[in-house]
Amino acid sequence: MPFVTIQIAKGHSTEKKRELAKAVTDTLVTNLGTKPEWVTIHIDEFDRENWAVGGELHIDKHSGRHKEKVVS
Amino acid sequence: MPFVTIQIAKGHSTEKKRELAKAVTDTLVTNLGTKPEWVTIHIDEFDRENWAVGGELHIDKHSGRHKEKVVS
Amino acid sequence: MPFVTIQIAKGHSTEKKRELAKAVTDTLVTNLGTKPEWVTIHIDEFDRENWAVGGELHIDKHSGRHKEKVVS
Amino acid sequence: MPFVTIQIAKGHSTEKKRELAKAVTDTLVTNLGTKPEWVTIHIDEFDRENWAVGGELHIDKHSGRHKEKVVS
Amino acid sequence: MPFVTIQIAKGHSTEKKRELAKAVTDTLVTNLGTKPEWVTIHIDEFDRENWAVGGELHIDKHSGRHKEKVVS
Amino acid sequence: MPFVTIQIAKGHSTEKKRELAKAVTDTLVTNLGTKPEWVTIHIDEFDRENWAVGGELHIDKHSGRHKEKVVS
Repeated sequence: MPFVTIQIAKGHSTEKKRELAKAVTDTLVTNLGTKPEWVTIHIDEFDRENWAVGGELHIDKHSGRHKEKVVS
Repeated sequence: MPFVTIQIAKGHSTEKKRELAKAVTDTLVTNLGTKPEWVTIHIDEFDRENWAVGGELHIDKHSGRHKEKVVS
Repeated sequence: MPFVTIQIAKGHSTEKKRELAKAVTDTLVTNLGTKPEWVTIHIDEFDRENWAVGGELHIDKHSGRHKEKVVS
Repeated sequence: MPFVTIQIAKGHSTEKKRELAKAVTDTLVTNLGTKPEWVTIHIDEFDRENWAVGGELHIDKHSGRHKEKVVS
Repeated sequence: MPFVTIQIAKGHSTEKKRELAKAVTDTLVTNLGTKPEWVTIHIDEFDRENWAVGGELHIDKHSGRHKEKVVS
Repeated sequence: MPFVTIQIAKGHSTEKKRELAKAVTDTLVTNLGTKPEWVTIHIDEFDRENWAVGGELHIDKHSGRHKEKVVS
């Protein structure tokens, strides 16, 4: 009875989640020989200001916060 | 110092959560012989579009999405 | 489809876990009106050297490590 | 930067885990358009006496504990 | 590759989270000798009505709900 | 009442865990203004064969499994 938690950033559509849940379930069925109805998937979405790698919030990664703006 | 996480679908009232936290704490006190103040309960609510069993999102389970209504 | 994780220290017997799983499931059925077969319980045991409150490992709490030895 | 936790019963070989980690990572890359090196997989194995569905420990499910012994 | 989950009540500012993620990452680097870019921090915020200690919701702790006001 | 889960590879000494639990607790006290006794730390150790980044198990990362040995 596998239980899978997928932590991803917020912002995926319902259709994308539908495909993801189906695809991961199929992968487990194929690889573990379990039945689909025994697989539970939990998509656990996080805010980009609640996730950090290297001590830096995700929200700051692709903003200009740490990049000098050089204007001539 | 038990720590309990209860993952349930969104939509329960504060009063229902109040009763649930009290009841589960009492159950642990009775069964494990621990003190109530050592028990922490975390109710972790999920959106129905973030939970899937059998590869199908919870949000699709009780809708007509997968059930054709055939009327003659 | 509630999913419950119970984090407790290692050392409980199988019989105690059996009673605990049954009791917590019953509590959820009574309080949430869910069916027993929809409730999953995961007992997640921790070593006492992997759990700390107040910055002190559980393993050190009841040992003499932080208590002065009084000899007459 | 997806983080995936897969909770399964103990007893799978290293080779099986190797295939599973690879397959789930590929599924996320295909479905979310993320890079493989951004995907972390945690296989979190549970003892069958620490997992219950319907209030019954997994260890009791397929034993004779709840099944009548039929002798002719 | 440490992965740290910090469960705290909702209500901290982005700036506070930024400082917290940085400080906890630095602490792990110093204590475990890991590289900062290998440390992931997840700040998992909970609603005060979803957290209970001693069987009482956090939302009820500091309200007057359980404290009789006795005035003569 | 912060609850912190630190997922790290197995193999750290009790003394190292003792220092880590103390240091992370102090960091939270300093940054969040909480009291030490309200902070719980859970060190959740994983086997290197149960953790993968980029679809490759940690156990395979530093072995010769994927690295050609170049000798001149």
